[in-house]
Amino acid sequence: MKAPSGHWHQQSLQFKYTQALRVRPGSRAAHSANGPENCFIIAESKSPILCARDLSVNPHISFEDCPPLDYLLVPGGRGTRKEVYNEALTGFVRRQAEHCQALLSVCTGSFILHAAGQLSGKKATTHWASLERLRALGDVEVIEERFVEDGSIWTSAGISAGIDLMLAFIAHTFGEQIAGDVQFSSEYFPATTRYGRVEQHPDAPTYLRRSRLHCRNH
Amino acid sequence: MKAPSGHWHQQSLQFKYTQALRVRPGSRAAHSANGPENCFIIAESKSPILCARDLSVNPHISFEDCPPLDYLLVPGGRGTRKEVYNEALTGFVRRQAEHCQALLSVCTGSFILHAAGQLSGKKATTHWASLERLRALGDVEVIEERFVEDGSIWTSAGISAGIDLMLAFIAHTFGEQIAGDVQFSSEYFPATTRYGRVEQHPDAPTYLRRSRLHCRNH
Repeated sequence: MKAPSGHWHQQSLQFKYTQALRVRPGSRAAHSANGPENCFIIAESKSPILCARDLSVNPHISFEDCPPLDYLLVPGGRGTRKEVYNEALTGFVRRQAEHCQALLSVCTGSFILHAAGQLSGKKATTHWASLERLRALGDVEVIEERFVEDGSIWTSAGISAGIDLMLAFIAHTFGEQIAGDVQFSSEYFPATTRYGRVEQHPDAPTYLRRSRLHCRNH
Repeated sequence: MKAPSGHWHQQSLQFKYTQALRVRPGSRAAHSANGPENCFIIAESKSPILCARDLSVNPHISFEDCPPLDYLLVPGGRGTRKEVYNEALTGFVRRQAEHCQALLSVCTGSFILHAAGQLSGKKATTHWASLERLRALGDVEVIEERFVEDGSIWTSAGISAGIDLMLAFIAHTFGEQIAGDVQFSSEYFPATTRYGRVEQHPDAPTYLRRSRLHCRNH
């Protein structure tokens, strides 16, 4: 992915951090965004973030020092179960939401958006293993798709669905041509291979059960 | 991806580093590998690695201190054009190759494998924009697929193709069930949406031109 490149890391990143893309609206910056001037990783502090699989990432900026953002992406991971109670994080998301043109989340990042008061009354999704938990919040219309757009709120299913979300978001925001450029440069034309019969898993999300009709394995 | 999770970062990571997975053969460790005990990022030194899009990652271990590996994944990126001349890197890959059960590369990482003497006479692939360069090396049989296996050498097309490569590698090495678990937990059942008509691009790789027949957009 060329634009919010950190999307590739969403699974790995545990919490105390969010990620943002700041671009001039309508510019091609979303395509060529490179470096903290336009696209950066934000965390509670600037200390290294220890992520899932022991990946260690260095944030560019702290919540406190972060300027107003145009777009804010909130990643998911196990850490979200605890971080929904972290007022430093949810407060940051809430404050940024006041002027962000869009808020996005990947995987269980949707629970952070909810804790920041941004998901009530909205359509949204999350990782398949957390769909029931999202439903149990009581005020979110849970949609079992790869990603869901509801106005300025974009949420995705688990981990890799963040790539689909982001291409759709880029197409919506900056046009099909730029989305096509990002998709081609990152060579995101995945194989349709399915290992095992996951669509028969009792927790398989709706889009997965249905998608057997769309694609055949090769 | 659960196993070599860093795969999600391959595009972003510029060079002076490789990534490795070290597991007990035949164990379920490939599935549950978590942390430097089993899966780590290796670099020329332990200093932070500044990657594409300004992502900064902290390696777990230096080339010098790295133990013998079972599997070694070499990522790609623009840095490879310079790093093929970095004897510290190519020497490390060459030494590890003596006992690794498999060598893998993503994107233009295949040029590092070649520079380390591991690709001559082999079938391999790379990012679509570098296929001609790979062909020009003269001693590699270039295959335009998402990924290519030739004995213990696995190479992938650009960036995101590393995910397809890794699932296939896990299925091959640890069985379909574990590959299925990884695929399901990472929810890697991508949308088949194509933005633009990239299959008509003059440089579109063979698998991309052909795959129109397999899937329809939704």
